[in-house]
Amino acid sequence: MAILVQKFGGTSVANAEKIRRAAQRALQAHKEGYQVVVVASARGKQTDHLIADAKELNDAPPRREMDMLLATGEIQTVSLFAIALWDMGQKAISFTGQQAGFMTDDAHSKARIERLEVGRVRGMLDEGHIVIVAGFQGINAVGDITTLGRGGSDTSAVALAAALGAERCDIYTDVDGIYTTDPRIYTKAVKMEQISYDEILEMANLGAGVMHGRSIEFGKKYNVPIYVRSSLNDNPGTLITHEVPHMENILVSGATIQRNLAKITLLGVDNKPGNAATIFAHLASKRVSVNDIIQTEVSAEKANLSFTVAHSDLDVARQAITDIRSQVHCSSVAVRDDLAEVSVVGVGMQSHYGVAEKMFTALAHKQINIDSITTSEIRISCLVNLEQAETALIAVCDAFELDKPAAERQV
Amino acid sequence: MAILVQKFGGTSVANAEKIRRAAQRALQAHKEGYQVVVVASARGKQTDHLIADAKELNDAPPRREMDMLLATGEIQTVSLFAIALWDMGQKAISFTGQQAGFMTDDAHSKARIERLEVGRVRGMLDEGHIVIVAGFQGINAVGDITTLGRGGSDTSAVALAAALGAERCDIYTDVDGIYTTDPRIYTKAVKMEQISYDEILEMANLGAGVMHGRSIEFGKKYNVPIYVRSSLNDNPGTLITHEVPHMENILVSGATIQRNLAKITLLGVDNKPGNAATIFAHLASKRVSVNDIIQTEVSAEKANLSFTVAHSDLDVARQAITDIRSQVHCSSVAVRDDLAEVSVVGVGMQSHYGVAEKMFTALAHKQINIDSITTSEIRISCLVNLEQAETALIAVCDAFELDKPAAERQV
Repeated sequence: MAILVQKFGGTSVANAEKIRRAAQRALQAHKEGYQVVVVASARGKQTDHLIADAKELNDAPPRREMDMLLATGEIQTVSLFAIALWDMGQKAISFTGQQAGFMTDDAHSKARIERLEVGRVRGMLDEGHIVIVAGFQGINAVGDITTLGRGGSDTSAVALAAALGAERCDIYTDVDGIYTTDPRIYTKAVKMEQISYDEILEMANLGAGVMHGRSIEFGKKYNVPIYVRSSLNDNPGTLITHEVPHMENILVSGATIQRNLAKITLLGVDNKPGNAATIFAHLASKRVSVNDIIQTEVSAEKANLSFTVAHSDLDVARQAITDIRSQVHCSSVAVRDDLAEVSVVGVGMQSHYGVAEKMFTALAHKQINIDSITTSEIRISCLVNLEQAETALIAVCDAFELDKPAAERQV
Repeated sequence: MAILVQKFGGTSVANAEKIRRAAQRALQAHKEGYQVVVVASARGKQTDHLIADAKELNDAPPRREMDMLLATGEIQTVSLFAIALWDMGQKAISFTGQQAGFMTDDAHSKARIERLEVGRVRGMLDEGHIVIVAGFQGINAVGDITTLGRGGSDTSAVALAAALGAERCDIYTDVDGIYTTDPRIYTKAVKMEQISYDEILEMANLGAGVMHGRSIEFGKKYNVPIYVRSSLNDNPGTLITHEVPHMENILVSGATIQRNLAKITLLGVDNKPGNAATIFAHLASKRVSVNDIIQTEVSAEKANLSFTVAHSDLDVARQAITDIRSQVHCSSVAVRDDLAEVSVVGVGMQSHYGVAEKMFTALAHKQINIDSITTSEIRISCLVNLEQAETALIAVCDAFELDKPAAERQV
């Protein structure tokens, strides 16, 4: 019998009415002949409330205890979900992360799944139960509760789908799929029918917040089709799969904007092997997450080295550079915190020329200055002035016709 | 190093301020040289809220799922408790019932502790932690979460104290000890310094709600001194121990009142062996909890059989008797639901005459009619009219001088 994993986020189970509606979806799939596994998050703002409760007692609560505390949010949802299903006459059983077999490492608050023992889940499915699993959590080797960090419930769901060989993992959320770009800025944005893991990974990393990168990586690695759809209606959503042939005809699948970026430039650094490594190793040791890196050779001896970081990391990054400056003989440091990054993403651009040119032309037409450019195989990103960023995104979306379904585009 | 177990009830950990105050008590005991284990209940009304959440989804939620749901309340308290202790600079670790080693049977919502594996608790104590354990919960053989039912956190605490060989188990609550009787009725009631397990067991069963009988039975069986005291102040509380010699000088330790009682009388039942067994086996099969039983012989062939039940069980009990009536040749059935039971309890009465006489005289002076009388070795109970019950309790308390500390009484 085919297995379907359904994941419901916090807004989709925020109250009794919503839990009942989500339970109806699980029941429907069960009636259609699927063995159904539900993964659920904490209800509504529960996690925020628990964090506030902890902060009232301790500004820096220990991570082990936070994991113990926060894991209760998901456990409450899944037991209530099972209770709702029994009321509908459906056999159901809820599991904590531990009971569902999620064995993780010791990294409290951002644990990685090491092993998933699905024997008990499978047994309950075979007995005709709908199985409801608390997302976001597992246990480590000594039996302490761990949590998987941001996007953790999505990761739980995709991992379960992989381990069970599920036909698909449905992610129910409060948006009805993934759009070509942020509709709050580009109102003509359209929903994508399908997108590849690689594209959505680039978009996730660039700040398109629908799904966290880790769960997509899991889906890609274990070949789990992920279907992002709304819990509020039955509109078709967006299917995330491996690249399929027709995708290559689409030049650009989506565009993103990433604000709150700062660029730090080290001017006149000694142009010799190992200097970049020294700098970024030091930043990593301070837990600064570096986005893009751009190095330009000024002369045979000197280079300028730039990188971008989130605003939240700027102070730490600036201090880190101050520490290391003399060691790499940097003559001066420049910081800009008024930049944003506009990017286009598409597997099609690997085999097409002219994407970069089309993007730059669109920006030039709007008198938008490009501070710097970075690219990957399926992405082109431009740093622009923050106050021009939305105009830039709209111009790029128009240029690549992101207001039309992929099949109808002329570019 | 001596071990102290401290148990904090829901009202004693209802908010951040109260958790901090409770944590200070644990820290104080640790500074005094104890290894400290804390057992905590769910915060304030959390359990009630969770029950309401479940009932919104299902009138009869399955017990396994309710246990899963309710257990989160205690887990939240203990992680927050540990977080508060770390803020005070104290090493602390919280445990679920499972992590603390509570292995129970399968009886969801009223599980019994089968085994307590305290290795990890002991290890953490030896490393200098204060260990905070979620009360009320354990797991069964397949790893499902169970709860221990009413008074479960007290039972968890006393069981841990027994397994760890603790010097004492302190029960922090919102009253400052156990009183000779209910001070809301007999305003002159005084706090008892000390009381025996047997006496408090009788009083608990008679409706004096300070502690649940199961935890006292545990304390008695494993010889754990239990100290009931207030979490709001440092007043001395009441110590529950095995009977000590001076207790025998106290005729009556306390008095209780039990309202909401109904008495069912089967008139003219065949006076032959096995009839009572038939009746009470049938009542038990309907899950009716019978309090007192009184049988009187009417003739060689016929007897009247009375028993009392809580009002909440009356309908079921009445139906059960209707079912079985003809089988025992009962000529008619009388029901009174306007009765209350007033009792006196004391280990001293075992070796003293005149306690019953003193009680009956006190009631007679107030023109209180006694419907029926039952006794045990350390208890005398009288059923009286409900509207005279408070007057009866006051009369009895005055007669046995329950407004005075035990040492000062003349009776």
